Amino acid sequence: MLFQRIKSEGLAHNSYFIASRSEAALVDPRRDCDVYVDVAQKEGVKIKYIFETHRNEDYVIGSAELSRLTGAEVLHGPRSDWGYGTRIENGREFEIGGLELRAVHTPGHTDESMSYVLREPSSGEVPVLVFTGDALFVGDVGRTDLNGEAEVPRMAGALYDSIFGAILPLGDGTILCPAHGAGSVCGLRIADRDESTLGIERQQNPALQVADREEFVKRKLAEKPETPPYFTQMHEWNLQGPPLLKNLPIPVPLTAREFKSEIEKGAVVVDTSSPTSFVAAHIKDSFSIWLGGLALFAGWFLPYDRPILLILEDQHELETAVRYLVRVGYDRVSGYLKGGIEGWYNMGFPTECMQVIDVHDLKAMIDRGEDMIVLDDRKDDEWNSGHIEGAMHVYVGHIPERMAEIPREKPVAMVCSTGRRAGMGGSILLREGFREVYNVLGSMTAWRAAGYPVSMED
Amino acid sequence: MLFQRIKSEGLAHNSYFIASRSEAALVDPRRDCDVYVDVAQKEGVKIKYIFETHRNEDYVIGSAELSRLTGAEVLHGPRSDWGYGTRIENGREFEIGGLELRAVHTPGHTDESMSYVLREPSSGEVPVLVFTGDALFVGDVGRTDLNGEAEVPRMAGALYDSIFGAILPLGDGTILCPAHGAGSVCGLRIADRDESTLGIERQQNPALQVADREEFVKRKLAEKPETPPYFTQMHEWNLQGPPLLKNLPIPVPLTAREFKSEIEKGAVVVDTSSPTSFVAAHIKDSFSIWLGGLALFAGWFLPYDRPILLILEDQHELETAVRYLVRVGYDRVSGYLKGGIEGWYNMGFPTECMQVIDVHDLKAMIDRGEDMIVLDDRKDDEWNSGHIEGAMHVYVGHIPERMAEIPREKPVAMVCSTGRRAGMGGSILLREGFREVYNVLGSMTAWRAAGYPVSMED
Amino acid sequence: MLFQRIKSEGLAHNSYFIASRSEAALVDPRRDCDVYVDVAQKEGVKIKYIFETHRNEDYVIGSAELSRLTGAEVLHGPRSDWGYGTRIENGREFEIGGLELRAVHTPGHTDESMSYVLREPSSGEVPVLVFTGDALFVGDVGRTDLNGEAEVPRMAGALYDSIFGAILPLGDGTILCPAHGAGSVCGLRIADRDESTLGIERQQNPALQVADREEFVKRKLAEKPETPPYFTQMHEWNLQGPPLLKNLPIPVPLTAREFKSEIEKGAVVVDTSSPTSFVAAHIKDSFSIWLGGLALFAGWFLPYDRPILLILEDQHELETAVRYLVRVGYDRVSGYLKGGIEGWYNMGFPTECMQVIDVHDLKAMIDRGEDMIVLDDRKDDEWNSGHIEGAMHVYVGHIPERMAEIPREKPVAMVCSTGRRAGMGGSILLREGFREVYNVLGSMTAWRAAGYPVSMED
Amino acid sequence: MLFQRIKSEGLAHNSYFIASRSEAALVDPRRDCDVYVDVAQKEGVKIKYIFETHRNEDYVIGSAELSRLTGAEVLHGPRSDWGYGTRIENGREFEIGGLELRAVHTPGHTDESMSYVLREPSSGEVPVLVFTGDALFVGDVGRTDLNGEAEVPRMAGALYDSIFGAILPLGDGTILCPAHGAGSVCGLRIADRDESTLGIERQQNPALQVADREEFVKRKLAEKPETPPYFTQMHEWNLQGPPLLKNLPIPVPLTAREFKSEIEKGAVVVDTSSPTSFVAAHIKDSFSIWLGGLALFAGWFLPYDRPILLILEDQHELETAVRYLVRVGYDRVSGYLKGGIEGWYNMGFPTECMQVIDVHDLKAMIDRGEDMIVLDDRKDDEWNSGHIEGAMHVYVGHIPERMAEIPREKPVAMVCSTGRRAGMGGSILLREGFREVYNVLGSMTAWRAAGYPVSMED
Repeated sequence: MLFQRIKSEGLAHNSYFIASRSEAALVDPRRDCDVYVDVAQKEGVKIKYIFETHRNEDYVIGSAELSRLTGAEVLHGPRSDWGYGTRIENGREFEIGGLELRAVHTPGHTDESMSYVLREPSSGEVPVLVFTGDALFVGDVGRTDLNGEAEVPRMAGALYDSIFGAILPLGDGTILCPAHGAGSVCGLRIADRDESTLGIERQQNPALQVADREEFVKRKLAEKPETPPYFTQMHEWNLQGPPLLKNLPIPVPLTAREFKSEIEKGAVVVDTSSPTSFVAAHIKDSFSIWLGGLALFAGWFLPYDRPILLILEDQHELETAVRYLVRVGYDRVSGYLKGGIEGWYNMGFPTECMQVIDVHDLKAMIDRGEDMIVLDDRKDDEWNSGHIEGAMHVYVGHIPERMAEIPREKPVAMVCSTGRRAGMGGSILLREGFREVYNVLGSMTAWRAAGYPVSMED
Repeated sequence: MLFQRIKSEGLAHNSYFIASRSEAALVDPRRDCDVYVDVAQKEGVKIKYIFETHRNEDYVIGSAELSRLTGAEVLHGPRSDWGYGTRIENGREFEIGGLELRAVHTPGHTDESMSYVLREPSSGEVPVLVFTGDALFVGDVGRTDLNGEAEVPRMAGALYDSIFGAILPLGDGTILCPAHGAGSVCGLRIADRDESTLGIERQQNPALQVADREEFVKRKLAEKPETPPYFTQMHEWNLQGPPLLKNLPIPVPLTAREFKSEIEKGAVVVDTSSPTSFVAAHIKDSFSIWLGGLALFAGWFLPYDRPILLILEDQHELETAVRYLVRVGYDRVSGYLKGGIEGWYNMGFPTECMQVIDVHDLKAMIDRGEDMIVLDDRKDDEWNSGHIEGAMHVYVGHIPERMAEIPREKPVAMVCSTGRRAGMGGSILLREGFREVYNVLGSMTAWRAAGYPVSMED
Repeated sequence: MLFQRIKSEGLAHNSYFIASRSEAALVDPRRDCDVYVDVAQKEGVKIKYIFETHRNEDYVIGSAELSRLTGAEVLHGPRSDWGYGTRIENGREFEIGGLELRAVHTPGHTDESMSYVLREPSSGEVPVLVFTGDALFVGDVGRTDLNGEAEVPRMAGALYDSIFGAILPLGDGTILCPAHGAGSVCGLRIADRDESTLGIERQQNPALQVADREEFVKRKLAEKPETPPYFTQMHEWNLQGPPLLKNLPIPVPLTAREFKSEIEKGAVVVDTSSPTSFVAAHIKDSFSIWLGGLALFAGWFLPYDRPILLILEDQHELETAVRYLVRVGYDRVSGYLKGGIEGWYNMGFPTECMQVIDVHDLKAMIDRGEDMIVLDDRKDDEWNSGHIEGAMHVYVGHIPERMAEIPREKPVAMVCSTGRRAGMGGSILLREGFREVYNVLGSMTAWRAAGYPVSMED
Repeated sequence: MLFQRIKSEGLAHNSYFIASRSEAALVDPRRDCDVYVDVAQKEGVKIKYIFETHRNEDYVIGSAELSRLTGAEVLHGPRSDWGYGTRIENGREFEIGGLELRAVHTPGHTDESMSYVLREPSSGEVPVLVFTGDALFVGDVGRTDLNGEAEVPRMAGALYDSIFGAILPLGDGTILCPAHGAGSVCGLRIADRDESTLGIERQQNPALQVADREEFVKRKLAEKPETPPYFTQMHEWNLQGPPLLKNLPIPVPLTAREFKSEIEKGAVVVDTSSPTSFVAAHIKDSFSIWLGGLALFAGWFLPYDRPILLILEDQHELETAVRYLVRVGYDRVSGYLKGGIEGWYNMGFPTECMQVIDVHDLKAMIDRGEDMIVLDDRKDDEWNSGHIEGAMHVYVGHIPERMAEIPREKPVAMVCSTGRRAGMGGSILLREGFREVYNVLGSMTAWRAAGYPVSMED
C-alpha cells in the first residue's frame, strides 16, 4: 500500500494519493494536478478513482481536470447535482488493488459531504485511514455556516451525528486524513500538525469535548468565520465543473513600459513582495499580498474579469504565484514586471511609499496622545484574544466595504499579528487615497513581546 | 545574451534557445516542447519568434505546439506552402532584445531551407552564430536525396552554392549551430562533437574538401543514405501542421493479463530491454528496440494506426520512451507491462528466447563450415568498411521487405556493430517464424577486437 | 510540527525526521545522511538530537556521521557501552521546539532497545507518535534471537513485557513508527504498509494475538530467521562507532581492459543486471545480485577487505548501488564497467551463460523423470508454505557453506519465488564450477500461477 | 567529445568540463566542486586532470579540493611555486580520451599564466577550443596591474605578446573559453555574451584594436581597476593550497534571541535583502549586500576571522549565499535569522531605517539648493561616463578608508547605477553613525531615463 499526503500550500489543503498493486485513487485533488500524474507515473500505478469529499468553496476542484488527463472516474456524495462525475450513496464500496474503500455519508459541513474509510483486507478488518474532508480536522471540526445562518442548527446537528455516529465509531486506531491543515479558512483552530488519529481527536480535540449534541450546536452557533466573496464563484464552478486549465498560465515578463501600458488598459497589479519592501517602494494602486498569502487573500480583493499582473520579489517565485492564483480560479495571470520593482524605478517611473513604525514608537505616540487611528485588521477571534486599547477593528477583507468608517484625514497605523495583513490593509487604504498610512512592523506579536498592555474589551 | 543548445536525445537533434533582455527565440523546437517554456520561465524571457530551418523529415516539428503555448510567431523559408506559420524571404531581419537575426536562404537539403545569422550589434558586426539546419553539419553536409535520385544534381549543386556562397563567407570566426549531431539519419558522418566554427569546417570538414562544385555534386551522387518509411508521414505533417499534443501520452501500467488482452486486441509490443535480456526471455512477436534506438528505428517498423505497448527494463525509462516515440509521431503509446518481463513470466505466461553466441564461437562454427547464415544488418557504409567473409547483407530496416531472400531453414547468426541492431533484426526474423536465430554479442566490434579477418569484398 | 518518514530503500529501513519551530531531531538515521541535512536546510531547522532505538545489526548506524556534520547530540539506550553518544535511562525527557519526547526502555529485541514517545503539549497529553525501533512493527514484532538461541526465552519475555506493558498502554490512538518496513531481515512478516497505530496492531497484528506471555515466548522460540554473516561486522561497528564516510565513494568508469586488470588484482565483481540479462551474458565468477537486492544480500557473499567492482544495467543506477553498499559497510566500491556488459563483450572478451527455463518446461522435465536437481533457495518459511515435490532446499545465503551437499554432475534448476534469488544462487554454483545451471524464470510464483502441484512436506 | 561551461554565479567565473570516452579534465574548477563530480558521474567519465590557467586572486581555487575527491592530477604554469599540483612548461601535451590538450605559456595577467589548446585529432588538426584564463576575454583582455603599478609595462607587454603571438595565431575558427564573463572584477568591459571565437575577438574586441604593442601597453597603463583587499588572502591561499572544505558549511537557523546573542559575541551581520527591504527595516550595524553581490563585495568589507550571520529575504537563498561566500573563502558562515528580518521585529527587537528617495525628488532637492551631499559610489569608469553635477565620488569599496572626507552632519543621498551599491554604501555610513542617509532608488539609470542632466566633469 502506498499512501501520500499531497499538500497545496497557500490553501492549507490536503489531497491524498492511495495505491495498491497497479491501481491508485485520489481524494480531493487540486486543480493544478500535474503532481498526481507524476506520482502515479513514478510509482507505476493507474489512477482509477477520484473521490471528492464535498463540493468545496475555498478552491477550484481538480477532479474534472485530472479525469481529463487520466480517464479516472470522479465520485461525489448524494443530495446535490454536480455537472460531472458520479453520485454515490452511503455504504458504496470500491476496490483499489488490494485495498477496500467504503463511502460514508457524513453531512454537516455540506449536505452531500462524504467520508471514505480505507481498509486493507489482507491484514485485517480494522479501518486504517479515514478521509473526512471538512467534517473532522486535527483539533477542530468543519464550518456549518455555509448554507447561511438560519441553517446552522440543522447543519451543526448533522455534523455532530456524522462525527459521533459515523466517524468516531470506526475506532481510536484509525488514522485521520482531513481536507485541510492549519491556516485554512475552513477551520479556525486547526492544529499545526498533520498526524492524528480518531483516538487522539476523541480525547483532545476541543470541539469534541462537549456534553451533548445541544452543546455542540450551541458552540457552532457562536462561531463567526469569515466568508470571502470568492466562495460564491468557487461554489458555482465546483458544482457545474470548473473551466479546464490544460496547462498553467504562462505569464510573460514585461518591461516597465509594457507593464505600465497593461495597467493603463485595465490590468490589476498584485505586489507579492515582503511588507518591508512594499513600504519602501511600490507602484500606485497595487495590492500588497505577500506570496504565501496569495491563495487565501486574492479572493477577497481581486476581480475575475481583469488581467492580473504580478510584482515578485524574486522571479523564481512566479510558478508558485501562478499556482496559488489558479487554485482559486484566477487564470488570467498575464504578466509580471521584469526585474521586479527595481525594473520600474530604474526607468525613472514614480514609486509610492507607505510609512513604517515599530511598536515602541507606536507606544510612544499613543502615550503622547497623538491624533491618529490604530486600525487592527485581524479576524474576530484574534481581536477578541487581545488588542491595543483604543484601536479600531475592521477585518482586512471588510476594509473595502467599510471604508467610509475610517477617518481619512488622520494618520492610520495598521496593526495585525506580524505586519503582513497590516501591509495588505494599508495598501487598500492607499488605493483609496489615504495619505499617511503606517505599517506597524511586528504588530501584536511584537507588542506582546515588548510587554505592552493588551485589552480584551471590545 | 543567452544561448543554449537543447538536444533531443534519440534523434541527435539540436534546437537552439537564444535570448536577450526579455525576449527569446527558438530555432527548430521539438514537439515535446515543455523544455523551452521551462527555460524561458527560468530565464525570465518571452518567446517571441520560432524559426524553422526547413521542413524536417526525421521528426515532428514542434513549432505549432510551442506557438499554441506561448503565442510566438512561427517563421519558415520560401518555396513551399506550410499549413501554418509565416513564410519569409532571404535577407529578412528580426530583433530579439539586443540581438539581430538575419534569414539567409540556403537551399540544397530542401528547397526552402533557411539559415539564420545572429549578430550582437552592441559588440560589433561580425556574425556570432549561424544556424544552418541540415545544410552544414560538424564534419558533414546535409542529404540532397530527399526529392528523389533524379533531383540530386540540382539539390547538391544548390547546397554547394549555399555553403560556399552564403555560409562560409560569413567568416571563419562564426560559430556553427546545425540541426543535428552525430547519430542522426540526416548526416552519415557527423562528428561526435557539438562545438565548431565555420573556420574549422572550412579547413577540415571532409565534405568541403572538394576541388569544385562538380566534385561536390559527384560525391553527393555516390551517397546512398537510408530513408526510413516514416519520413513520408513526417513530411506530410510538418507541412500541414502536425497533430497537437497538449500533453504527453500517459501510458498506464498493465498487469500481465491486461497486457495480454491488449495484444489480442491488436496492440504492438516494443521491448526496449537490452539485447542480452531480450535473448533470455521476451514475449512472442515483440519488437526488440533498445531504448536509445527507439526514436531512430520505430519509424522503420511500427504502424501509426495501432496502439503501442512497452516492455521496459526499468519503469523509470517510461518518460524517455514516450518522448522518443512522440518525437517521431507515435502518440498512441497506451500502456506498459507492470514489472517488465518479470511481470509476465511470474504469471506463468510463456516467454520466448533468442540464441546468443560470442564471436569466438561464431568463428569456430564458420571455420568448421557449419551450415548457417551470417546475416549482417548494418548500413551500407558500415558493411563496405569491412565484414565477415561469406556473410549476407541486408540493412535492418529492409529485412521485412527482403524476408524472402533469407533462408529460414538454416540457423541465422545476426551481426551488426555491437549486437543491438543484430537483436532488433533477429526479433523481426522471429516474428516471421524463424526458429534458430543467434545474436552475435559484440558483433563486428568484438570480431575486430579479437583480430579475426575482415573482408572488404561485396 | 513537521514529521517525515525517510525510507532507506534496499534495507526497508525507516528513519524519522521530526521538527518544531527551529529545532529538529532524527530517529535512527542511516549512514549516507545527506538527506537529513537537506531536509533540515529546506525546512529551516537545526538538528538538535539524534535518537537511536538500538544498536542495529543490519546496517551501519548514521548517528556519528550526522553528528559530525551538524553537531547534534547522539542518544542511545542503557545496558551497553557505545563508543560514542550519550547513554540515557528510561523516562528521560527531551524538548524539540514545542514537542516533548520521552524515552521508554523497551528491551527484548536487544537489551538496550529504547522506544521514544512524542507528545505535542500545546494540543494535549495523548501520545501522538511512538518510535518503536525493532520492538513492534506493522504486522509483526522484532527478532529475539540475536543474543543466541539460549537467550530467546529471556529476550522474548522481555519483548512481551515491553510491548504489552509499555507500548500498547500508550493508547490505541498513537501512531506507530517502527524502524523497518516489509522486506527487512529484521521481521519476517512485516506488512507492506507504513501506516498503522497501536490500536490497529493491538487488534490485528498476528504476533500480538496470543493468550499470554508464555504463548508469545513459545512462538518466538519456533521462529528461525536467517542471520547473515555481516551482522557481526555491523554489530561491532555500531557499538564502537563506524568508520566515517565524509562523502560517498566515487567509483570510476573502467574500460573492459582496466576492469579485467582490476579483477586480476583481486577485485570482486557484482553484476546487478536483471536475472534475464545475466543468464545471457556475464563475466566469469561474478556474483549476480540484482540492484534492489544489493543491500540485503551483499552481506552474505561479499568480503569487506577487497575492492568491489560493479556491472550495472544502466549507468544511472550507480549512485543507488553505491548507497546500498555503503549502508551495509562496503566502502571500497572502486569502479564500474563502462558501458556495462556490452563494454566487455564488445572488446571480444569472453562471457559466460546460465541456462534459462520456464516452469512449463521444468514441469515436463520433472514429469519425464530427467536426472536433475531442483534447488530451491528460498527462506525456511517460504519453503514451508509450499514447494516443488522432490526439490532440495538450501537457503541462498547458505549455499557457499553447504556446497558439498549439491551434486555437481547433474543439471541444477534453481528455484526461488520469482527467479532473482534463483539467479543469485545459480551464480554461486557457477563460481564453484557447476556446468549446467538453470534459472527457472518466475519460479514458484509462476509455478503456482500455472496451477502445478505444490508440496508442503519437508 | 563532451564540453560544458560551468559558471560560478556571483563571481562571473567560468570553469570548463571536457571529456572524451571515459576520461575528463577540468579547467579552473571552483571550490564548491560537487558540481564537477556530479557531471562526471552522470556522464560516466573519470576526472583525470585539473588544469589551472593561473593562480587566481578573486576566488579560492578548487583544484586541491577536487583532487582530494577524485585523485585527479593538478597542473599549473611555470614561474611560481605552488604548494600543490605539478608545474608544467610551455608545449606540454596531454591526452584526454581521444582529445589532445596542449599547454601554452601566456604570461601577462600573471607570470605563470597558461592557456590550453584543445584539438580533436580524429577530426583534424585545427584547434577547436582555447582556454585563455585571464589573458583574453570576450570583449576585453586581462588585468596587468596585479604585480603593482611599476610592473604594468612589463606585464602588459607580455600580455600583448601572449595574445598576438600565441593565442590569435591559433586561427579565427578557434572557440574562446576565458575564465570570466561579464561582471567579473578581472575585466572591466567583458561582454555580456559567453560565445566567441578568436576571429570575432580579433576583429572586434576593443582592447585588440591597437596599432602596436606600445599602444596596447599605454592603454593598459591608463586603466585603474579596483583591487579588493581580499585579493591578498586569495593569492596567498591559492599558492599555498587553500583550506579544504570537505562539505559546505551548514549554517543553523537562529531565533531572534539567539541571533542577538551571537552578535553580542562578535559575529558580523550581512543582510542580503533587496535595497528596498533594507531601507524599511534592518538590524543596526548590519551590512547591506544583496544576494547577487555577495561574492563580489564580501571581500571588501567582511573580516575572515569572525563568524558571519545572514539575514535572507527567503530562506531558500541560504545555499546560494553560502556558496557565494565560500567561493571567496568565508567558511565561518555560522547561522541565519529564522524568519528573516520579520523574525527579529516580531520579537519586539528594534530595527533601523534608511531613507528612500526617487530621482525626481532628488532633482527637486538639488534644484532647491538643499544643503546635502550626493555621494556617488560607483567605479571610476562609471563615474567618468557621466554623473550628477556636484556629486562627491568615493567608490563603495573605499568608503571605509575615506570616511573622514564625508561630512556626517549633512544628509547624504547615496547614488550608484540602480540603488544596490547605494544601499550597500549607505549601510557603511549608518554603521559609522551617519544619521540621515538616502538611497536614491534607480540612481543613475533612473536619472538618465528621466532625462536629467549628466556631467562628465570630474
